[in-house]
Amino acid sequence: MKKLPEKTVERLSQYRRVLLKELENGKTHIFSHELANLLHITPVQVRRDIMLIGHTGTLRKGYEINELVKSIGEIIDCKTEQKVAIIGAGNLGKAIMGYLKGKRTKLTIKAVFDVNPDKVGRVISGIRCYHIDEMQEIIQKENISIAILTVPADQSVQVADDLIAAGVKGILNYTPTPINVQPHAYLEEYDMITSIEKVAFFAK
Amino acid sequence: MKKLPEKTVERLSQYRRVLLKELENGKTHIFSHELANLLHITPVQVRRDIMLIGHTGTLRKGYEINELVKSIGEIIDCKTEQKVAIIGAGNLGKAIMGYLKGKRTKLTIKAVFDVNPDKVGRVISGIRCYHIDEMQEIIQKENISIAILTVPADQSVQVADDLIAAGVKGILNYTPTPINVQPHAYLEEYDMITSIEKVAFFAK
Repeated sequence: MKKLPEKTVERLSQYRRVLLKELENGKTHIFSHELANLLHITPVQVRRDIMLIGHTGTLRKGYEINELVKSIGEIIDCKTEQKVAIIGAGNLGKAIMGYLKGKRTKLTIKAVFDVNPDKVGRVISGIRCYHIDEMQEIIQKENISIAILTVPADQSVQVADDLIAAGVKGILNYTPTPINVQPHAYLEEYDMITSIEKVAFFAK
Repeated sequence: MKKLPEKTVERLSQYRRVLLKELENGKTHIFSHELANLLHITPVQVRRDIMLIGHTGTLRKGYEINELVKSIGEIIDCKTEQKVAIIGAGNLGKAIMGYLKGKRTKLTIKAVFDVNPDKVGRVISGIRCYHIDEMQEIIQKENISIAILTVPADQSVQVADDLIAAGVKGILNYTPTPINVQPHAYLEEYDMITSIEKVAFFAK
């Protein structure tokens, strides 16, 4: 299953997010065209993705939401808990902690790292904040495999190198500086300025 | 130039970000393969994009960075200032204000909206915070064309409808709830959980 394309994994995550929302609203079944509508994609795409993970619905009632959520989880979640560290306890770091908290997910934020003495040693949104000098030690000790980078732009390259050296397997880079990771680690980069400039261009 | 594909606009924005960084470091010229390396794409892609905006470099020295930055700006920036509102003055809203501040850009954040009485009426990172009830009035008065949504998930649909009704032309939706906008407005959606789940999947 490692071979699933990146875009498919993204969509499966999005399906689950929307399905959980529908469950909350008391819905038990959903048709592919409804799911497609909610996510601005085609029903054919939805059916293809869901077929790919070996799940089927019925013509009359569509997909059983609870079952589909389970099927998606079996594919995209790790069997065991995956531990996450957030590097940078600024506004963005805190926003991410807030978003991830209480989500039905196998991902657990184990630590946050910063250099600010007002933050180091404190517990922020339920997560202990350590000094960034302790980063490699804590990552190894806690067996943290995923890191989310929200440090200042001029520090991202060094911090990423340290993370990979400490054994991190995946990095989500939210800093505006592109980084490199060794081929055995997975890197996802997102720059807010690019998204804002894109919206600005098409809103002209 | 309205016809530029979304992905091209994204890359042009990324080129500029990287080029400005190189300028800061004292570099004056750059080759397509260097730019490609920094952004993990192919030199052919870089050359194609830059040719598309009518800019050329020289074989011996590559692109003149200052000129290329100007060419990109002429394509993707608005001739006049574009005004931006941030809806939601939580951690993510504050992070975005911080990122956009001081960037060489034609985008100006004019207002932030929230319902929290501790925030309304205050100036946050240099931006005045208004109550969300005043949103439509301020947006029309200030001629704000771009909105960045960071409100709680259950409010995004209503807020987006109000924004479009007030004349906003582009929305960047950072809430986990997908929204719809009328066909004349541009919508970009980004959900952090999806990115994190994707990194988690490939870091397994």
